[in-house]
Amino acid sequence: MPADPVLPDGVYAACVTPMHDDLTPDIDALVDHARRLLAGGCDGLLLFGTTGEAYSFTAGERITMLDELLRAGLSPEHLMVGTGGVSVPDAVMLTQHAVRRGIGGALVLPPVPYRDVRDAGLFRAYAQLIREVDDSQLRLYLYHFPALSGTGFSHSLIERLCDAFPNTIAGIKDSSGDWMHISGLCQAFPDLQVFSGTERFLLDLLGIDGAGCISATVNLTHKRAGQVYAQAGTADANAPQEQLSLVRQTLAKYPTVPALKHALALRDDRPAWRHLRPPLTTLSASEAETLGHKLRGLDVL
Amino acid sequence: MPADPVLPDGVYAACVTPMHDDLTPDIDALVDHARRLLAGGCDGLLLFGTTGEAYSFTAGERITMLDELLRAGLSPEHLMVGTGGVSVPDAVMLTQHAVRRGIGGALVLPPVPYRDVRDAGLFRAYAQLIREVDDSQLRLYLYHFPALSGTGFSHSLIERLCDAFPNTIAGIKDSSGDWMHISGLCQAFPDLQVFSGTERFLLDLLGIDGAGCISATVNLTHKRAGQVYAQAGTADANAPQEQLSLVRQTLAKYPTVPALKHALALRDDRPAWRHLRPPLTTLSASEAETLGHKLRGLDVL
Repeated sequence: MPADPVLPDGVYAACVTPMHDDLTPDIDALVDHARRLLAGGCDGLLLFGTTGEAYSFTAGERITMLDELLRAGLSPEHLMVGTGGVSVPDAVMLTQHAVRRGIGGALVLPPVPYRDVRDAGLFRAYAQLIREVDDSQLRLYLYHFPALSGTGFSHSLIERLCDAFPNTIAGIKDSSGDWMHISGLCQAFPDLQVFSGTERFLLDLLGIDGAGCISATVNLTHKRAGQVYAQAGTADANAPQEQLSLVRQTLAKYPTVPALKHALALRDDRPAWRHLRPPLTTLSASEAETLGHKLRGLDVL
Repeated sequence: MPADPVLPDGVYAACVTPMHDDLTPDIDALVDHARRLLAGGCDGLLLFGTTGEAYSFTAGERITMLDELLRAGLSPEHLMVGTGGVSVPDAVMLTQHAVRRGIGGALVLPPVPYRDVRDAGLFRAYAQLIREVDDSQLRLYLYHFPALSGTGFSHSLIERLCDAFPNTIAGIKDSSGDWMHISGLCQAFPDLQVFSGTERFLLDLLGIDGAGCISATVNLTHKRAGQVYAQAGTADANAPQEQLSLVRQTLAKYPTVPALKHALALRDDRPAWRHLRPPLTTLSASEAETLGHKLRGLDVL
């Protein structure tokens, strides 16, 4: 038996992180953004994923940021928090903190600086994490994103983790961008919540009992993604799905986070969208102009 | 004018990190290992590189470890410390601490979780690091290792960094494994210390005024590497260089850190060599046996 899902199926934005001029997170702006997303199409949110520039913050900053967001009124049960990608002791600290705050699920990427890891080593890393967090409330989502972490999850590793930690492993986010891979996961692990990292596959995935999507571009396309989710199984879902895929395709030609922040700055004119932590940089003037033009043409802004 | 080099040219081992049974670092064993390396062929040491499993430790653990090593008597001026690969604020903290402790140089990899970064973004990251460390004693070594960090250093980025921070940028470690690339760096930047990440190129690199090597396998081959360095320019250097390259080639067929720790455990029979933090795992029994056999044949153990 897999873990009872605490997080709902559906559409999740992998939230971008607005920042003050000094590159500290702008909590008020992030709470406003989160509320807008949840009110207009999102079933949940991922905080501190790649899109949130999580790796540009120290573990301590991420802990403080989450506490401030909860204090500002975000409710934890629809939040998934990225707590992996780093050393196992850092992941333990981040995950334990999130679980104690009532966060619905922890999305855990393998440690990124290890590029070529064996299944036995990844099992060891996840086992140590789960044992040290030592909390029956933990709902852990595996993050399959080999282009980022170097190593992905084989079916046999997922099986081994589910067998060892049946009440903890709740699902998987698949950012391979490969339909064969994600549909294979759905088929092999019907009891896990399988989320796609791109909303391109949203409708198709829902058609085979997938859970939904957790996506960067949903920061902009939450309404349409919500329509697709609500109308899945009817002919009305096809047009918004096509629109979603078009916007995704357009944004994919630019660096993701700079492009999203530029688009949000065009939409909201809020200075907090204009900042990125290094090593990211804003789009060039000509990129910015072309992207704005294209997104207006797609009726996104 | 580039930074006056504080660290000597020559042969550096990228030290492995011995551990107690509970996976905390075994400081006494590391100090013994470091002294053996420095007494027998090494001109300096790199601590907390990839080979040292740096990314399996929190920033706080790395700071404590360095303090304990210095307290145990290692002298800082021949030490290079890996302080990059992570968020810029973490790199600032690690680098500032190392400089304040009198460490000869900081080796800084681009932030690993950003896989496709533009020159302008990397410049921003290094500029912020150098400005925030704000210490004229900082000698910074760029770490070109695109297979690990996703992004390497273009010549124009190196130039821009040297122009902006002439007293800080002291050199570069090139782990591309590509002779054309490393010889190109030597030619283009004669005032920088150019180190190779593999001792395969040691003799050739010294022939074109390169600085030396900083290498994982030197944990085992320090004596021969020292002979090559001492005899460079004479015919006596050729035989030990061939031996070095053979050992390197042999070890390259195994996961580096597990293979090195296994070899050191065979040599020293010290339990501290038997441990690895996840996501690494020990070699399989058959790998271990074959490797031991091969290394004995090469007269390394």
